[in-house]
Amino acid sequence: MDEKLEDALDRLLERIEELGELTDTPGDGLSRGFLSPANLEAARRVGEWMRAAGMEVGFDRGGTVRGVMRERQGEFARVQGSVFSERQEEEGEEEGDGRALVLGSHLDTVIDAGKYDGPLGVLIAIAALEVTGALSFPVHVLGFSDEEGVRFHATYLGSRACVGELTEGVLNLRDAKGVSVREALEKGRVPSDQSAVISERQERGRDGSEAGSAVSLASSSFHYAPGDALGYVEVHIEQGRVLEVWREPVCVVSGISGQSRLLITLNGQADHAGTTPMEIRKDALAGAAECILATERIAREQPNLLATVGKLEVKPGASNAIPGEVSFTLDFRHPADGERERLLAELLGSYAGIAEERQLELVSEVVQETGAVACDEALTKRLQEAAKPYTGTPLMLTSGAGHDGVMMSKAMPIGMLFVRCRDGLSHHPDEYASPEDIGVALRVLVDFLLGLDEG
Amino acid sequence: MDEKLEDALDRLLERIEELGELTDTPGDGLSRGFLSPANLEAARRVGEWMRAAGMEVGFDRGGTVRGVMRERQGEFARVQGSVFSERQEEEGEEEGDGRALVLGSHLDTVIDAGKYDGPLGVLIAIAALEVTGALSFPVHVLGFSDEEGVRFHATYLGSRACVGELTEGVLNLRDAKGVSVREALEKGRVPSDQSAVISERQERGRDGSEAGSAVSLASSSFHYAPGDALGYVEVHIEQGRVLEVWREPVCVVSGISGQSRLLITLNGQADHAGTTPMEIRKDALAGAAECILATERIAREQPNLLATVGKLEVKPGASNAIPGEVSFTLDFRHPADGERERLLAELLGSYAGIAEERQLELVSEVVQETGAVACDEALTKRLQEAAKPYTGTPLMLTSGAGHDGVMMSKAMPIGMLFVRCRDGLSHHPDEYASPEDIGVALRVLVDFLLGLDEG
Repeated sequence: MDEKLEDALDRLLERIEELGELTDTPGDGLSRGFLSPANLEAARRVGEWMRAAGMEVGFDRGGTVRGVMRERQGEFARVQGSVFSERQEEEGEEEGDGRALVLGSHLDTVIDAGKYDGPLGVLIAIAALEVTGALSFPVHVLGFSDEEGVRFHATYLGSRACVGELTEGVLNLRDAKGVSVREALEKGRVPSDQSAVISERQERGRDGSEAGSAVSLASSSFHYAPGDALGYVEVHIEQGRVLEVWREPVCVVSGISGQSRLLITLNGQADHAGTTPMEIRKDALAGAAECILATERIAREQPNLLATVGKLEVKPGASNAIPGEVSFTLDFRHPADGERERLLAELLGSYAGIAEERQLELVSEVVQETGAVACDEALTKRLQEAAKPYTGTPLMLTSGAGHDGVMMSKAMPIGMLFVRCRDGLSHHPDEYASPEDIGVALRVLVDFLLGLDEG
Repeated sequence: MDEKLEDALDRLLERIEELGELTDTPGDGLSRGFLSPANLEAARRVGEWMRAAGMEVGFDRGGTVRGVMRERQGEFARVQGSVFSERQEEEGEEEGDGRALVLGSHLDTVIDAGKYDGPLGVLIAIAALEVTGALSFPVHVLGFSDEEGVRFHATYLGSRACVGELTEGVLNLRDAKGVSVREALEKGRVPSDQSAVISERQERGRDGSEAGSAVSLASSSFHYAPGDALGYVEVHIEQGRVLEVWREPVCVVSGISGQSRLLITLNGQADHAGTTPMEIRKDALAGAAECILATERIAREQPNLLATVGKLEVKPGASNAIPGEVSFTLDFRHPADGERERLLAELLGSYAGIAEERQLELVSEVVQETGAVACDEALTKRLQEAAKPYTGTPLMLTSGAGHDGVMMSKAMPIGMLFVRCRDGLSHHPDEYASPEDIGVALRVLVDFLLGLDEG
C-alpha cells in the first residue's frame, strides 16, 4: 500500500504544478475564472486523470467536472446508516443502496492566485481513490468551476448549481462585460473532449442520482437533492496560521463560521483643507478612522469574533480636500450565528454613536449574510480517527473562510480536513503546502475511506 | 462714479457667467486645464474685454493673458516709494518711473469647478480699471493660465513663468498623456486673435519690463524681476466659511500659510480576513486610523494649525483581506514656518510610535513644501483703509489656500482681498459669491487704486 501511496502522492504533486500553469493571464500570474478557457482546460485535464483512476467522467454546463468511481462489482455496500448522523431514512430506501460519498473542491482561482487553494482538494481525492480503488459505495469527485466568485462577485457558483441553489437573483448577476450568469450558462460548453461526457441516460441509470434528468439552468446536471448522497468531504489548505502555531500538519474542521458582509457609508462635508477651521469640519475619514478602531477593539475583546475593514474609499479623495464621503466594507465572522448578530448590532451601535458625535450621516447595508455551518458529527469523528496517528492533540478549527461545503451542506452532511500552509498565506502566488503535509492529508483521506469501507 | 461702477459690476457679473460656460468637458461641468482649448478661449475673451477697457493685450506661450493700462498721458507718476515697504530703491531708478502695479488671478479651474475661483480676480481688476480709467502709474492685469495644477500636478505654472520659476524640474513634469511642460510650452500657441498680441519690440519699449527680451521656456514673455513692479494685488473668494461666521463681505489677507504635503505609507501584512486571529494581525488600515485621529487631535489643540488626511488608498483593498499596505496624504498648514516644522515633527513622532506598537513599517515622504508668505504691510494697510467703509472690524485672515501671490511674492510685494463665498464652498459647481459682496470688493479695489493714484 505504501508504495502505491507514494506513487499517488508524486502524481498529485505533479498535477498541482501542472494545473498551476493553466492561467487566463499568461505572464501575469495564475488566474482562472468561471467558464474561462484555462478553467475549462483544467477541468478537461482533471477529467483525464479521473478516467485514468478508473472513474467515469462528465461535465456540466457551468464547467464543473465530475468523476464517478462505481462501487465494487457484485458487492453489497456495507456502509451503515448509523455512520451518518443526518442520514435520512427515506421510504423504500435500503441500506447500502448505492448512495455515493462526494469528495471535491474547486478548480477556479482568485486573481494572481496560489496553486493549492481548491485544486488540492480535487486532486487529493483522485489520488486517494488511486490508492484505495473501488469501495463498497460509489464515490463522486467534483471539481467545481467557481467558488471564489471573481467573475460575478457571487461565490460558490459551481456547488450552488449542484444543489439547485442558482436562484433567479444569482442567474441575473452580470460580469464586468455585462454578461449574466444565465447567458454564460446558456453559452456554457463542456471541454472539447466530448468522449468524456457521460450521457444523461447512462448517468441516471447507474448511480441513482437525479443528475441529468432535468437540465434546467437553475441546477447542474449533477444535481443532489437532500438525502441523495452520503456526505461531502473536502480537503483544503487552512489559509491561516493556526496550524503553524500548533505545529500540526492537518486538522479536522468543526464548522464554517457565519459571516456578515456590510458596506458602511459615512457622509460629512467636503471642504477645502487649507481654509476650513478644524472646529467646523465634518470629516468623514476621521469618523471612519474611529469606526475602524472600534471594529478592531470589539474583535480583540471577543474570542471567536473576526472583524475586518478591508476596503475603504474616500471622496473626493484629493490631498487638499477634507473627505466628504467615506465608504468601507465590514467583514464580520463568528462560529455562532446568534453571537454574530448580537455583536454586530453592538458594533453598529458604536458606529451610530461616532457618527452622531461628529454630525455625520451613517448608512449601513448588509451585502451578504451566510449562516454558520456545522460539520457532521459522525463524519468529523471518522476524520479525527483517521487523523489521530499523524497528529498530536485532536484539536479542531472553525473555518473562518467559506468553502464549497457551505453549499453542499444544503443537501448532505459535510466534513472537512485542513492542511497547514506556509505563513498562513493564500490568495497569493507564494501560497505553499509542503509535500510532507500533503502526504499526511492523503494518508488521512485514504484511511478515512478505508474506514468507511469497512463499515 | 456710482453709475459707472454699477455698469462695470453688471458687466463683471455677466462675464463671470460667460467664462463659466467655457469648459473642456461640455455637458460634464466646468473644467479648464493648462493650454486647453477652453482655457485659451477664456484668455482670448478676457483679452477682448481688456482692450475694450483701454488696455493693450498680449499672450505668452503658456496661454497667460496680460492687459496693460498705460499711465495717464503726459503726467508724472505720483506713487511714492514709501507706500511699498519692500520696494527696492535700485540704482538709477527714479520715483514715479513708470513701474506698474500688477493685478490678477488665474483663468484655469479644477475639474467640475465653480465659476468664481480665479476668474473673479481677473475680471474684477478689469472692472475696476473701467471705473478708474488710466492712473498715474501703469497697471498690468494678468489672467494666469494655470494655478490649480490639474494637468501637471504642479501648481502656479502661469505665475511661475512670470517670475522665472519654471525650473528644470517643473519643465520635465509630464501630464497623463506623457507630454512634458516643456513640450506643451514649445507647442503652446496664443489665441487665434493674433492682432491682440503685443509685439516684443512694443512691449519692451513701452512698459519698461524685461518682457519679451528673452523668450526662453523658463520664463514668460511677461517676466518680472525683483523690483520691476510696484506690487501684486489679488482679489479671490475666501474658499472657507470664516467670513460667513464673521458676517463680513470681504476681508484683507495677512499672509498665505506655509504648507507641507506628505505621503505616508504603512506596511503591515495582508492576510485572510476569515482565518487570521486578531492577535497576530498586522493591519495597516487600523494603524492608519490611529494616525488619522492623531492628526486631527494635534490640529484641534493647536490654534493656527490645519492638518488633513484627504486621500487614502488600501492594498489589497478587498473586503475579505486584511489591509497589508495603506498610503495616505497629509496636508499640514501653518502661518509660521517654524511652528509648522516643529508640529509636523511632533506628529510624525506620533506616527512612528503607532507604527512601532503595531509592528508596521512607516515611510514618510515630503512631496511638497511651501514657506509661508506674508502680505506687504503697506499694501495691506492701504487695502484695509479702502475696505473700512464697507466692513465692521478690520479683521484679517491668513489664507490657508495657496494663491498666485505665493509665486508673485518672489518678485514684488503682494496684497490680497478675500470675498465671502456661500457655505465656504469652492472647487465645486455650487461655488457662489453674491453680487452684493462682489460689488463691495469692486468698490474696495477701486478705492484702493484711487488712493494709490492720489499718493
